Amino acid sequence: MASIKPSVPKGTRDFSPTEMVKRNFIFDTIKGVFRKYGYQQIETPSMENLSTLTGKYGDEGDKLMFKILNSGDFWNDAENKKLKEENFEFNSKNLVPIISEKALRYDLTVPFARYVVQHQNEITFPFKRFQVQPVWRADRPQKGRYREFYQCDADVVGSDSLLNEAEFVLIYDEALSKLGLKDFTIKINNRKILSGIAEIIDKSDNIIDLTVAIDKLDKIGLDGVIKELMDRGFTADDIEKIKPVILLEGSNAEKLESLRSALANSATGLKGCDELETVFNYIAGCQLITARLELDITLARGLNYYTGAIFEVKTNEVAMGSIGGGGRYDDLTGMFGLKGLTGVGISFGADRIYDVMDELNLFPQATSQSTQLLICCFDKEGEQFALPILQQLRRNEINAELYPAGAKLKKQLDYANNKNIPFTIIIGSDEIESGLLTIKNMQTGVQEKCTANQILTVISK
Amino acid sequence: MASIKPSVPKGTRDFSPTEMVKRNFIFDTIKGVFRKYGYQQIETPSMENLSTLTGKYGDEGDKLMFKILNSGDFWNDAENKKLKEENFEFNSKNLVPIISEKALRYDLTVPFARYVVQHQNEITFPFKRFQVQPVWRADRPQKGRYREFYQCDADVVGSDSLLNEAEFVLIYDEALSKLGLKDFTIKINNRKILSGIAEIIDKSDNIIDLTVAIDKLDKIGLDGVIKELMDRGFTADDIEKIKPVILLEGSNAEKLESLRSALANSATGLKGCDELETVFNYIAGCQLITARLELDITLARGLNYYTGAIFEVKTNEVAMGSIGGGGRYDDLTGMFGLKGLTGVGISFGADRIYDVMDELNLFPQATSQSTQLLICCFDKEGEQFALPILQQLRRNEINAELYPAGAKLKKQLDYANNKNIPFTIIIGSDEIESGLLTIKNMQTGVQEKCTANQILTVISK
Repeated sequence: MASIKPSVPKGTRDFSPTEMVKRNFIFDTIKGVFRKYGYQQIETPSMENLSTLTGKYGDEGDKLMFKILNSGDFWNDAENKKLKEENFEFNSKNLVPIISEKALRYDLTVPFARYVVQHQNEITFPFKRFQVQPVWRADRPQKGRYREFYQCDADVVGSDSLLNEAEFVLIYDEALSKLGLKDFTIKINNRKILSGIAEIIDKSDNIIDLTVAIDKLDKIGLDGVIKELMDRGFTADDIEKIKPVILLEGSNAEKLESLRSALANSATGLKGCDELETVFNYIAGCQLITARLELDITLARGLNYYTGAIFEVKTNEVAMGSIGGGGRYDDLTGMFGLKGLTGVGISFGADRIYDVMDELNLFPQATSQSTQLLICCFDKEGEQFALPILQQLRRNEINAELYPAGAKLKKQLDYANNKNIPFTIIIGSDEIESGLLTIKNMQTGVQEKCTANQILTVISK
Repeated sequence: MASIKPSVPKGTRDFSPTEMVKRNFIFDTIKGVFRKYGYQQIETPSMENLSTLTGKYGDEGDKLMFKILNSGDFWNDAENKKLKEENFEFNSKNLVPIISEKALRYDLTVPFARYVVQHQNEITFPFKRFQVQPVWRADRPQKGRYREFYQCDADVVGSDSLLNEAEFVLIYDEALSKLGLKDFTIKINNRKILSGIAEIIDKSDNIIDLTVAIDKLDKIGLDGVIKELMDRGFTADDIEKIKPVILLEGSNAEKLESLRSALANSATGLKGCDELETVFNYIAGCQLITARLELDITLARGLNYYTGAIFEVKTNEVAMGSIGGGGRYDDLTGMFGLKGLTGVGISFGADRIYDVMDELNLFPQATSQSTQLLICCFDKEGEQFALPILQQLRRNEINAELYPAGAKLKKQLDYANNKNIPFTIIIGSDEIESGLLTIKNMQTGVQEKCTANQILTVISK
């Protein structure tokens, strides 16, 4: 049979052993830091009921969700009465709810909200959970955007303390420092400050237009932002009032001071300033390892959603979009009928972090995940001699392999090189007779004589 | 809005923090042992092209596969020309290929075969890979059977050495011993022995009937098996010939000896005996930690598939189906056009292992995944005092939390108890003044005075 070269679906990826070691390094580091701060892991199913997901991500989200065809004889199942109605119009939109009742997870936040409501009686609040699982989106695939990708989220629900916000800054700082990043900025803003800015020009209803324009400051500069604001119906007078806010400069304390005077007439705006100050004070009591923490009032991501703090993390070492973000939302679980539960959370962009680390060559060379020693031999006798040595090493928690007898030595050494195995031992008849082995460091080429019992010492050097 | 209590789709599960710690313990242990034996992790996408999966699991598998509805306007897309053909019959079978081109992974083996063929030029053979990922099957959910569950597979392709078989026995032994199992049996058989038995009665074509009947020995006893064999068309003469084989007794060496004489006229059967003996000899050169290794010729799982060794693992401590299985297959990648690549692999049944360990209370109490210390305080002053202490502990890799100020002490201590946090420190005005803290062991109730710098020592005791 002629066969087509097999492939994976558009926008999805295989991960090779080398890639997995790197990905695990990222995920394990982040998970370790989450745990250190008291966050506990949960997992939710890959598929959720359509009723759980529909309408939670806007029309676009509903469209990009991967729906699962009902199993069994879906066309003849219960719901198909509708198909036979005289005026039933056959189109995708009408058919989806009839032939599908489940979809793949689109993010980790809605399933988490569903989890909290469903298990509210088993949960001790404040509930600090983290979750590292894939999500699926039928986006048009492009460089760096995939249809299956992992999200790494940590959220706490049931605590309005700003200590949580401060701890998320510390978590970003510690995790990204541990990954080896040397220069990155954690930007922080507060939705209440954005509301305050809209309030002082009496344009609370236009807050979206306002923030969309301000958000572009980096890209189009002040003149561009002013033009955009005019286009969106803001007056010259409005712009005069908010210009000092947009052009905020100096230290975080100085910015807060300027904001306080600009927002003096907005109680909400001042509340936002107070909240930010509290977070800064918490952080001042600790010590950031690497991160710069920067108040950035142009930051407005997920505005419809966030009610307090807004976070975003950017590396300053390579050109790359944000590698993390999050914020506080006051009504996460309301969509499932549990009102008044406040939450705050952050997310790490694992794929982008991977790309940054790859570009900066930050992945550790040797990891505990790889084989440390390959024993090569030529025949059954060599195998029998090598096996107890091999098992002895493994009992000492050394990752070790014995290449099955019968292959040429070159092939065996190529295997060691391709797998980046740092040490090899070759067992020939001399070695079997004398019990004296030669262990070779594959990087330096240095060879050393030792007995079976000394291997551990040589490798651990 | 009245809201329905949210739920997960039938046959799927949420995993709580407590369950995740236990599941991670199982997965991390198994992965660690895989790595120790030189197996490297890969991951494949959750969805595969239908063309990759269809026909690989029989009609039943094709039916139980979760298909993904094409995204976008699937009803009006290219393929729908077919829908307009006059004689197109609208039914599930005809519609699936038109409105779906992807399905969720049904097992890890077919995606692995696809991976090997697709990446054959990047792979160094023998390729030892492991994979721990969920799979999905639209089975009728029942106790212990889920529609989403994890598989843990290790396979080596491109090596016909029986050393691999021996190492899989060692892997089962080490991993299950590390998980705390104290009495389990690794059963081993060889497809060639089953072929040999069919050969000596000249019924090679009826090997399936033969093995299905023999496989029931445990459940229905010898008389039952004989009746079943008669029902399936075997003669009294046939049965007389194979009875000694079915009733094999004694040590593995004794069983092999009996088999050799019974199968003297079958070259294939004798080859199977040789292969088993080689595996036993390898193992004899090592030392099993806990496992009993038992030659069991009634073992026939996945017969159509396996060509050499067949494995199955059962615990002897609780009543439970097999907790692992595998075998050698000589043509894994043939389905994708790459012929003659032999492979052998095993799988751990993680969900069943979980149930066994839960029943036997084998999960470790304390794990490095939980918070070790909770600091309680009453006000902002307490928080400010506690934060540097907290960060100091975290810098020393201690998982620690500070309960945000404002909650009653009882609530804070309940939080510690619910999260099984072993140590608490309460920061009041006395502590802030004196710098002398009281650390409480939540299990024993014992309290101890110490300075901030001594906490580490107290906790590590």
